[in-house]
Amino acid sequence: MRRALVSVTNKDGIVEFCQGLVQLGFEIVSTGGTLSKLQEAGIAAIAIDDVTGFPEILDGRVKTLHPKVHGGLLFRRDLPEHVATVQEHDIQPIDLVCVNLYEFEKALKAGKPMEDMIENIDIGGPSMIRSAAKNFKDVLIVTDPADYPSVLDALQEKTDDENFRLNLAYKAFSTTGAYDAMISRYFAGVVGDDFPDILNISLKKSEHLRYGENSQQRANAYVDGFVQESLLDYEQLNGKEISFNNVNDLYGAIAVVREFGDQIVTAAIKHSTPCGVAIAETGYESYMKAYKADPQSIFGGIVAVNYKIDKATALEMKKIFLEIVAAPDFDDDALEVLRTKKNLRVLKLNNLGARDAKYDIKYLEGKVLVQDINTKMIDEMKVVTHAKPTQEQLSDMEFGMKVVKFVKSNAICIVKNGVTLAIGGGQTSRVWALENAIHNNPDKDFHGAVLASDAFFPFNDCVQVAVDAGMTSIIQPGGSVRDQDSIDLCNEHNIPMVFSGFRHFRH
Amino acid sequence: MRRALVSVTNKDGIVEFCQGLVQLGFEIVSTGGTLSKLQEAGIAAIAIDDVTGFPEILDGRVKTLHPKVHGGLLFRRDLPEHVATVQEHDIQPIDLVCVNLYEFEKALKAGKPMEDMIENIDIGGPSMIRSAAKNFKDVLIVTDPADYPSVLDALQEKTDDENFRLNLAYKAFSTTGAYDAMISRYFAGVVGDDFPDILNISLKKSEHLRYGENSQQRANAYVDGFVQESLLDYEQLNGKEISFNNVNDLYGAIAVVREFGDQIVTAAIKHSTPCGVAIAETGYESYMKAYKADPQSIFGGIVAVNYKIDKATALEMKKIFLEIVAAPDFDDDALEVLRTKKNLRVLKLNNLGARDAKYDIKYLEGKVLVQDINTKMIDEMKVVTHAKPTQEQLSDMEFGMKVVKFVKSNAICIVKNGVTLAIGGGQTSRVWALENAIHNNPDKDFHGAVLASDAFFPFNDCVQVAVDAGMTSIIQPGGSVRDQDSIDLCNEHNIPMVFSGFRHFRH
Repeated sequence: MRRALVSVTNKDGIVEFCQGLVQLGFEIVSTGGTLSKLQEAGIAAIAIDDVTGFPEILDGRVKTLHPKVHGGLLFRRDLPEHVATVQEHDIQPIDLVCVNLYEFEKALKAGKPMEDMIENIDIGGPSMIRSAAKNFKDVLIVTDPADYPSVLDALQEKTDDENFRLNLAYKAFSTTGAYDAMISRYFAGVVGDDFPDILNISLKKSEHLRYGENSQQRANAYVDGFVQESLLDYEQLNGKEISFNNVNDLYGAIAVVREFGDQIVTAAIKHSTPCGVAIAETGYESYMKAYKADPQSIFGGIVAVNYKIDKATALEMKKIFLEIVAAPDFDDDALEVLRTKKNLRVLKLNNLGARDAKYDIKYLEGKVLVQDINTKMIDEMKVVTHAKPTQEQLSDMEFGMKVVKFVKSNAICIVKNGVTLAIGGGQTSRVWALENAIHNNPDKDFHGAVLASDAFFPFNDCVQVAVDAGMTSIIQPGGSVRDQDSIDLCNEHNIPMVFSGFRHFRH
Repeated sequence: MRRALVSVTNKDGIVEFCQGLVQLGFEIVSTGGTLSKLQEAGIAAIAIDDVTGFPEILDGRVKTLHPKVHGGLLFRRDLPEHVATVQEHDIQPIDLVCVNLYEFEKALKAGKPMEDMIENIDIGGPSMIRSAAKNFKDVLIVTDPADYPSVLDALQEKTDDENFRLNLAYKAFSTTGAYDAMISRYFAGVVGDDFPDILNISLKKSEHLRYGENSQQRANAYVDGFVQESLLDYEQLNGKEISFNNVNDLYGAIAVVREFGDQIVTAAIKHSTPCGVAIAETGYESYMKAYKADPQSIFGGIVAVNYKIDKATALEMKKIFLEIVAAPDFDDDALEVLRTKKNLRVLKLNNLGARDAKYDIKYLEGKVLVQDINTKMIDEMKVVTHAKPTQEQLSDMEFGMKVVKFVKSNAICIVKNGVTLAIGGGQTSRVWALENAIHNNPDKDFHGAVLASDAFFPFNDCVQVAVDAGMTSIIQPGGSVRDQDSIDLCNEHNIPMVFSGFRHFRH
């Protein structure tokens, strides 16, 4: 008679699973609450104390940590010495283990106090799982209720071979690894260690992606279980499967929008780079302005907004080819309009304001750069010229800094009345970024516009180009050894320049 | 008398640590090889069997998994019922645990067969560590020999308070988390699961960085312990502390160089984007060509090469301001020259050819995109025009594709004789990228050059711009619905165009 050891926190389906095991000729050994539940269901399970000859003690802190259990799990059936040892010590073989763990993650999400968190650290469970998984050649380990049916099937069909058990063992170690990753990150928070010596990140697969950045790359999307409210938590209401590049671009789009807080804003993104951003009194107006900011680049792009999309706006969005429209909400008739384009991905954003994530991580083939997310914006608006900016200029300056923050460096944004007139980025020279921004928009009138730069001016050439194009105020972080050259040139032309203090490189 | 349980694989410093503990009034309980070592050193350690009343069995697979051990670790000293229970069962309190684990990672790096890997999965160790760490309010857990001195100090000075123990418990869970992450990734490889449902990534801090992408962001560099040969494994031979942006840019630079295999190549990178790349017969020549390709952008940039740098090349590099020079090796006199610039970061690359990493990961505030690294280059060189490319054109085409792969999309590279004449990228429109590349290099002669594009041409406008600038051959992936428009225009001008098959977007 084969023996199964069953001890679960999540009791979903456990009765049916054990009934199946009994039918297949297993005897069941169980503990605490699981035992009661099985006995109530009429399953003749043996109490773990009867196996160990030792009671469950310390409020269940110690019940299975016993040689009668772990010997029964860990002995190698292929070694006569091992077999002799277990017989000598009257240890019964355990052939199958079904364990899931105290719900540490659930307690974490519920915001429980530390005392409760500690009680939710399972000790006996991971030990049993790991013993069984190590000895997968002889023992079958089940850690996920979703696997109950396939395990019963395999046992029934006698396809529970070594490979089958290996896959379950692999899953078991993935589970214990994720469990302790979560615990260690919890404690990192408790002790206030922002950059741990060991940083354990456990990712759960959330969706298969058709392919990666390019079709020759396979890809999947995951979520970091430790980040409770993800900015990229969305519900797809329409359209084709989301792609790798969609998600990446979407992040850029939502991050820009989030920066504007309560202001009504539309951001259009193409190839991870903003191409049109506008604030306005209404959503419709803000969309129209963002669209007109660059009606060429928005084609095939992503639009993210922070307002409920109405029918009039949806009708405008429908006119052009967009990959994604993302918003916190949609009027029913607006959604109806967008759904007439069956490929258009329409996403409802569930956590547009989320700032729960802690790290910005660049994974470079095994070398990993971990930094704080750049949550800062402007240190102080320090006017460095004789001329002082007007209120309108100041608000366009702030607007411009919010946009350049998300443009690849060197980044330049030309703004007027809460709309981007031109955006330049990703250049190896700052003045090129500015020249390109102007050159790419031959029909635009830059007179009276604000120039915003993500980093300081090493020379005064950007000021010169801006003045030549008619721009009348400038914001940049300041901090170059040659700041004075740029200040002098601004003073010469009597235009105000403001230093924001914070640089916003983005590579 | 306080009791310490000591069971270590790495025995460095264990004798001295236990001597310290004995002097502080601890009695030592120990197991297997650790026990022998302590006894040989004259420390009167108690064998674990004498505590459990149960022998070590199954070749050490079961020694400490016993209520006498785990009860002694897990009982709460503040609960009278717990205290009564341990007394009733004659369980002695254990106040300190010193455990380190079977060296799974070492076995992995040594490429051991699966049978050995399984034996290197520690079961008893993680159980003891986790029990002690869970009960850190009463128990002190030491998992790292580096902590022995500070632990002895704290015990001596009686500063081993709850907070001290909490920090050790935190480290303990970080350690067990990392351990099972490694095991789960090993098994993922064994079963061939490239995109696991649970992907556990454990990072070890490798270096503190002065700040992140911007000075308002804190940052540290880590390594993924599972990636054995990292492309970014370098030794710093000279210069200022490496910054976050340095490492990020360096990755781009080395990745380009790696693509060229045995060809002698120099890559100059600015703001993560190649600004000059050249192959040649000698390192010196290749550097000079890469430098001259864009003598403006290389200023403040990074130069990575795949050859041993000689004195002549070092003297040229010295003439301009570079952030980093990275090479697999340096002549002594070349290094001497570079070291005369005390800020210049000089890096010796230890693994320039490394392709050990599996994943390209984008971590977007908790949503995580995981894809294969883009190792592909060209599917086939398919000539689609009446005109056929010459050998020289074909090799410049290949060269161009290697460069555009690492330029932010949309990416354009204009190449002649193994040198980049112009590079354009990061634009929201492909034709802008091309126009910028031309416009930013007013002094360049593009006659007879090759145009390479990272993605297909949706219209024939790029062909027109290329022809107008004098370019005489084109390579692009192909695959647009309007490919024929571009083919027709090439045929009209009698220039060859090749389809490479693979797109290389990079955002």
